[in-house]
Amino acid sequence: MTENAAQNDPPTPLALPRGIRFAGAAGGIKASGKPDVSLIVTDRPAVMAGVYTTNQIVAAPVVLTRSKTPTSTGRVVLTNSGNANACTGEPGMQDAKAMCDLAAKLTGCDASDVMVMSTGVIGQPLPMEKVRAGIEDAAGKLGDSEADFLASADAICTTDQFRKTVSQTVVLRGHEYRIAAMCKGAGMIAPNMATMLGVVMTDAPIGPDAAQASLKLIANETFNRVSVDGHTSTNDTVMLVCTGMSESDGIEEFGPDELAVWQEVATQVALQLAKMLVADGEGAARFFEVRVSGAANDEDALVIAKTVAASPLVKTAITGGDPNWGRIVSAAGYAGPKIQPERTCLVMDGVMVFENGTPLSIDAAKLSQAMKANSEVLADLKVGDGTGKASFWASDLTEAYVRFNSLYTT
Amino acid sequence: MTENAAQNDPPTPLALPRGIRFAGAAGGIKASGKPDVSLIVTDRPAVMAGVYTTNQIVAAPVVLTRSKTPTSTGRVVLTNSGNANACTGEPGMQDAKAMCDLAAKLTGCDASDVMVMSTGVIGQPLPMEKVRAGIEDAAGKLGDSEADFLASADAICTTDQFRKTVSQTVVLRGHEYRIAAMCKGAGMIAPNMATMLGVVMTDAPIGPDAAQASLKLIANETFNRVSVDGHTSTNDTVMLVCTGMSESDGIEEFGPDELAVWQEVATQVALQLAKMLVADGEGAARFFEVRVSGAANDEDALVIAKTVAASPLVKTAITGGDPNWGRIVSAAGYAGPKIQPERTCLVMDGVMVFENGTPLSIDAAKLSQAMKANSEVLADLKVGDGTGKASFWASDLTEAYVRFNSLYTT
Repeated sequence: MTENAAQNDPPTPLALPRGIRFAGAAGGIKASGKPDVSLIVTDRPAVMAGVYTTNQIVAAPVVLTRSKTPTSTGRVVLTNSGNANACTGEPGMQDAKAMCDLAAKLTGCDASDVMVMSTGVIGQPLPMEKVRAGIEDAAGKLGDSEADFLASADAICTTDQFRKTVSQTVVLRGHEYRIAAMCKGAGMIAPNMATMLGVVMTDAPIGPDAAQASLKLIANETFNRVSVDGHTSTNDTVMLVCTGMSESDGIEEFGPDELAVWQEVATQVALQLAKMLVADGEGAARFFEVRVSGAANDEDALVIAKTVAASPLVKTAITGGDPNWGRIVSAAGYAGPKIQPERTCLVMDGVMVFENGTPLSIDAAKLSQAMKANSEVLADLKVGDGTGKASFWASDLTEAYVRFNSLYTT
Repeated sequence: MTENAAQNDPPTPLALPRGIRFAGAAGGIKASGKPDVSLIVTDRPAVMAGVYTTNQIVAAPVVLTRSKTPTSTGRVVLTNSGNANACTGEPGMQDAKAMCDLAAKLTGCDASDVMVMSTGVIGQPLPMEKVRAGIEDAAGKLGDSEADFLASADAICTTDQFRKTVSQTVVLRGHEYRIAAMCKGAGMIAPNMATMLGVVMTDAPIGPDAAQASLKLIANETFNRVSVDGHTSTNDTVMLVCTGMSESDGIEEFGPDELAVWQEVATQVALQLAKMLVADGEGAARFFEVRVSGAANDEDALVIAKTVAASPLVKTAITGGDPNWGRIVSAAGYAGPKIQPERTCLVMDGVMVFENGTPLSIDAAKLSQAMKANSEVLADLKVGDGTGKASFWASDLTEAYVRFNSLYTT
């Protein structure tokens, strides 16, 4: 897309999973003329799993794709950007099905093996002529080069400032398995809400049930731990594609130990994407990590971390480079889970500012300067003597965010 | 305080409950020299009840006052602004007790009958010499005039743009009972967090248990239904003071039916205060009400209303005068309680924009103009066929809010 995109791309050569072709095309769904149709096609039937938005108001493509996963006969992940096909009623469902039909016809598979995702404006019918033109164009350009992969990653973006891709290898059984992944930004975007979409692809041999279980765990540790503004979209989807077409093709599926190793690497890949997504949050100036320990259990720690990260007061303090322990500690206090106020400690960027319920005398101006000099801020909060811990990543809250989102757009 | 204050004061003559004297004084806790000590003293032992912050990080005055209510021997409500006496450890508790001791001595009662509240900076020791000076000054100025009442209301403010008072009468048994109330703003304020404090006073004959139960219900319908930024403070407190010293003094306490009538009026008084509090939210440009109906029950409706009101995307749309149904409907979708998407309808300021899950064709520009022309916006959201309903009031989210709260202040 832009110079920005190049800066954020992973180092080449990319470790693209074998057995997958990619394409991006501009069908004209976006008025800007930017790419808006992405195709990911496996050479042979592949395992595909998905995790989806928990919003009860849910877009047609989510309903349709959700009904098809997990599967071991998946062939296509088709994405359009520029229109979310959400709140579009029965005609929207017909459009989503028509997209699958066309992609199936052009790639020589069954429509039931095509997964579809959409992102963009909600409440408007898909411009199907343009969608069809984009799909046809993309189908004619499928390839397995790095340029093809990046083109498909470009085409899922909406107001993202840069495309988001990560690739990584993991060696098991003496073979190199590849993982490549892309996502597009959450965080809310004119003219309506945007969506987090992601695709994690691998040539590792993983069965459909294992893939579904693994994807859920991966998403819980990564995409479910980041927030721009806490607004859950109608379209959020992450797909996992496993072609199994590695050097060890034909060998049996991963056992539990192998899967655990693969999953650890895939989680790191997804975490890198998730952090990019926060860094690209609308209007975001600074990125912060809330690390909670000492809670009764991990679930409690996550609730506390999420509550701290969601507080507008905390977010604006981060924007201002303000080591404002009062806002962070008090957010932990209203999060819900039991904490031990007299055992609560807070370390901001390596400086303890609050110890066992008592503020410490610190050089606040110096700490603020250090925070302002970094694009990332770490708040390390201990809330008691428990063993529960969790991390959460969030963008700050800036005037630019408000400006973007208060522009008249309907 | 200012011209603003005069504009927002209730019409005179105020219906001040009999048997209460008031004062405000400037002890110098605030560097600005503005009033920072408020005294409310009953002529005789009075019923006092309280509801308090649910934050686990809780200020010393809350711990102390909470242990004294409900009571039928209350005499004093003492408030200081400019310093919250929160996160101040055991010395903070000693200071809170010393405040009660001094007020008791000056007004001729027992320290156990003095309720204390604090608001302002957290994590700093109270400047006790200044606090003492303020209490002594206030005790010397106690009076039952309207000016005295307004002076005590001024003295509880922090960065409030205007003082907040309401008064009302209710006639029962052929007698006029009076209700007067004051509060200071929630919404978050430099240099740290601020607090919602409120005092509802009446000369009605209500016993301690009935007062406590009634205050809880009143607060749940009013102060617990407003939000500036959802950050619960360490100091939030609302007190109910019932002197019983009305024209019907000596007659028995209100029965259930009389109490219900009184409570209805007191709820309206508290609701007016609560709305003022939102209107004075930091950086707030526009005020909005979310009215949810059709939920399975009232609790579900409240969760949905609160979630919609807390969404930064919804808040920024309100700021922009944008009838953005997608943001509101999708916030309802992720709130948690079950909704019926195909039965969901949204009316913005009297214009139906979304009906039974389908967007309507509306003149969005005209509706936006109407929204922009008003300082209040009403979103009326039906989420199904249930009987549950609830209202919630919130401020919008402006660049000014972010600017205020991201200034370096520690």
